[in-house]
This record gives sequence, structure tokens and C-alpha cells, in this order.
Amino acid sequence: MKKIIALGIIALSLAGTASAQVKPEEQIKYRQAGYSFMSWNMGKIKANLEGEYNTQQVQAAANAIAAIAGSGMGALYGPGTDKDIGEVKTRVKPEFFDPANGPDIGKIATNFNTAAAELAKVAAGGDKAAVQKAFGATGETCKACHDKYRME
Amino acid sequence: MKKIIALGIIALSLAGTASAQVKPEEQIKYRQAGYSFMSWNMGKIKANLEGEYNTQQVQAAANAIAAIAGSGMGALYGPGTDKDIGEVKTRVKPEFFDPANGPDIGKIATNFNTAAAELAKVAAGGDKAAVQKAFGATGETCKACHDKYRME
Repeated sequence: MKKIIALGIIALSLAGTASAQVKPEEQIKYRQAGYSFMSWNMGKIKANLEGEYNTQQVQAAANAIAAIAGSGMGALYGPGTDKDIGEVKTRVKPEFFDPANGPDIGKIATNFNTAAAELAKVAAGGDKAAVQKAFGATGETCKACHDKYRME
Repeated sequence: MKKIIALGIIALSLAGTASAQVKPEEQIKYRQAGYSFMSWNMGKIKANLEGEYNTQQVQAAANAIAAIAGSGMGALYGPGTDKDIGEVKTRVKPEFFDPANGPDIGKIATNFNTAAAELAKVAAGGDKAAVQKAFGATGETCKACHDKYRME
């Protein structure tokens, strides 16, 4: 079963072969930091799409999202990170850690990474309409996971 | 004075022309998230340098650090973020917000961005010795700010 979970976690990220030993509570904090920072950058892109468009800012924000998405966050869902640890709370649903959902989670993660990479690619081009489309697609991949595997 | 602070903040990042309106307490949370996530990735690179070296993982980690560093974090040091806001604590020293230190902070920030970009560049090449050097240089630029502008 551990092996199956590991496969699901590896599927979460192409760069998930973590060698650093990180405590479960730190894993939860780091993954939340990653999502939080991506959220800030998604907000900046949204503001640019709705207001004055600054190519450099959108590109920098998209790069941050893509690089975080591709940084191997799957390693931050290790054993013991499936529930609150003292003051460190997690909103990940238990279903996320069910090996049966490994393939589904792997697919969701791949879709997210692909969409984020595409967003960064089009952001570099500076075509606002293309960024709008890629931004929407990226948001959908975030939502796909939130709807299924994140508590309210 | 506001203008001088703004100049210092702009100097913090080349992409700091934020248009998204972010509350002070959220700014503090987002900047901490960015540093936290960079810390995780620095830790991964360190573990790779000290143990088995995985080029793909180091490259992904370095990309995340460089992209976060270049994402315009200067915008997260806006007015009202110089002290704790309720439960949201900050360790940034008041000196950081002193306009007189603007040029120094701008220099530190530029050094950090440059070092992180260099780290990502050499990580892509896969030369462990070059990564070791660039990793050390990046760590020095982190420390330069921590020593001067971060509380213990």
C-alpha cells in the first residue's frame, strides 16, 4: 500500500524524488506556502486581465506559478500529513490519500502542471487574449482538485 | 516620504508594479509564503549537494526559487505591513521601512535576484560544483538581508 501511495505521490510531480527529510508538519506548511504564493500570483494576473495589462508583471507571476507547480510538491504529501498536526491544520480530504485515487490525483496534477506551463509560455508572448484563455484553463485545473480533494 | 518608500519597494523587484489590491495582513502572509517555499527548495538543493545528486530535482527547485525571487515581492511590503496585524506576525525590522535604507535594500534585493537567476541557470546545466558555488552565493544574499533586516 505504501508503494501505491508513493506512486500516486510521484505522479503528482515529475520532480518529486525528494531527498530532503522534511517533518510532516513542515510538509503541510510548505505545501500551503506554495499554494498561497501561487494564489497571490493568480490574483495579480487576474488584476492585470481586468485592468491595466503589464506584460512584465504577468510574465513574472506566471513564471512563479509554473515553477512552483513544477517544483515537486508531491513530496509534501508524505505519510502523516493527512491530518492536522497540533496547530498545523490541513484542509486536504482523507480521500486524497486513498491509494485508489492515485491515478485520478496524478491526472489532476499533470493537468495543473501542463496548464501552468502553458500559462507561463503564453505570458512570455504578451498576448493578453491568449493569457486570458490560459489563465482560465489553469484556474480550472486548480478547481478540479479543490472540488474533489479540499475541504471547505 | 511615501514616494521614497515606494522607490525603495520598487527597487526590491523589477516586476513590482502590482495592480492587485492586497490587504496588509495578506501581504505579510504572501511574502512569508514565498520565503517559506524558497526555504523548502533551498533545503532540497542542499540535500542534493550533500547526498545523491538529482539534476532534475535541483533544477526544479532552483527554478522555483528564481521565479519566486523575480515575482515582484517588493509589492508585499506596502504601507501597514511594518508591524504585526492581529494574529499575523512579521519579523521584518522597522529599519526595513526606513526610506534611508531604500538604496541598501534595493541593492540587497537585486543581489538576491541575480544570484537566484544564476543558480537556476547553472542548475539547468547539471554541473554539481557550479551549483554548489551558486547555491552558496544565493544563501549569502539571503543572509545579507536576514542579518540586517530580520528579527531573530
